[in-house]
Amino acid sequence: MTTGTRRRMGVEERREQLIAVALDLFSHRSPEDVSIDEVAEAAGISRPLVYHYFPGKQQLYEAALRRAAEELTARFVEPHEGPLGARLLRVMERFFDFVEEHGPGFSALMRGGPAIGSTRTSAMIDGVRHAAYVQILAHLGIPDPAPRLELVVRSWISLAETTALLWLDGRPIPRKELERQLVHDFAALATVSAAYDERMAQVVRQILADDPTDGMFADLASRVGRFA
Amino acid sequence: MTTGTRRRMGVEERREQLIAVALDLFSHRSPEDVSIDEVAEAAGISRPLVYHYFPGKQQLYEAALRRAAEELTARFVEPHEGPLGARLLRVMERFFDFVEEHGPGFSALMRGGPAIGSTRTSAMIDGVRHAAYVQILAHLGIPDPAPRLELVVRSWISLAETTALLWLDGRPIPRKELERQLVHDFAALATVSAAYDERMAQVVRQILADDPTDGMFADLASRVGRFA
Repeated sequence: MTTGTRRRMGVEERREQLIAVALDLFSHRSPEDVSIDEVAEAAGISRPLVYHYFPGKQQLYEAALRRAAEELTARFVEPHEGPLGARLLRVMERFFDFVEEHGPGFSALMRGGPAIGSTRTSAMIDGVRHAAYVQILAHLGIPDPAPRLELVVRSWISLAETTALLWLDGRPIPRKELERQLVHDFAALATVSAAYDERMAQVVRQILADDPTDGMFADLASRVGRFA
Repeated sequence: MTTGTRRRMGVEERREQLIAVALDLFSHRSPEDVSIDEVAEAAGISRPLVYHYFPGKQQLYEAALRRAAEELTARFVEPHEGPLGARLLRVMERFFDFVEEHGPGFSALMRGGPAIGSTRTSAMIDGVRHAAYVQILAHLGIPDPAPRLELVVRSWISLAETTALLWLDGRPIPRKELERQLVHDFAALATVSAAYDERMAQVVRQILADDPTDGMFADLASRVGRFA
């Protein structure tokens, strides 16, 4: 890095820099409050040059969102080793890291609104949800689930989103507690579904049988046992 | 009713008729596929006359949505009598009635999209969520909840939305099963939270103590006991 000197960047390098600068700005303030002037200033280039790479704020926002979606999707990847509960907990920790890093932008995006919503942004969000869904099924070893398991997994993904959004609003509960609770919520939702359906009961029995005696799911059972 | 004769309607009556006709059309097809011409035809009036009452499709859509929001909110009202589980089940039954009646419109609205989303539609949806939240707290007798109870109730409302949306997509699971499951999910989410927090544990103990031995929550415990 040469300090104090403005380096000439290649086209791809400049685009990448603008996306990184925009993602940072859109992450820390509501996207509608971020102007192209600020992006230009933060990137150390002129406003017309920003427009040379991106025709408007919406396109730059979508490029930044695509970068964020790729980044979040990458955090879902977890080795298929060790107890399922511990794997889900590590994914939840990385999910909350992401939510914390991109707080205001994450809130604005997920709460929707005309200033930022588009068919393309909706599709990107659904793409991230689908990636999470596929990852979880892979960990369960059930790539082609019956409707009840699909419902449990998709419901749980939506619960993780809601929990993160409510956490961002004042952070009244420590995130470490919520990360563990969400793993326990997965077990709880699966258990309720299993109470109605034998195939789901088999899935849950297997999950519990595979979990070690000091694992996440045994921890839930002992916690519930203490108060109920 | 005079059949075959077109009656002259007053201004308010005509507005009400257009809202009812529009709500019916917007409920059964994705709102972006409904034209003002169809609204005019279904109402038996000319297209310019529709525009006399509503400046554009967005305004008519928002009026129909406001009507739907009021209707759904009214269905949350449940007498404070009998076991909590049974009350929540009756509310879930009415919620699924509403979802079934307004299926495609409900999906399109909740899945968002630029064609129908606006700051006002988002605010109406949040208003319905808030009404549900206030009703549930009233049934619990805790109008000013601690953060963990707030999280459980708001999470559960979002879970009910997600479950209804997934159900609409092909209806692979009978709605009667999902209505009961959602009541059990409420108990399950509250129980997980109670495993971490003494105040929540008190709330859950009270709910379980108030529920009859043949009630919804005892039913969950016995179902889980049978398979676990």
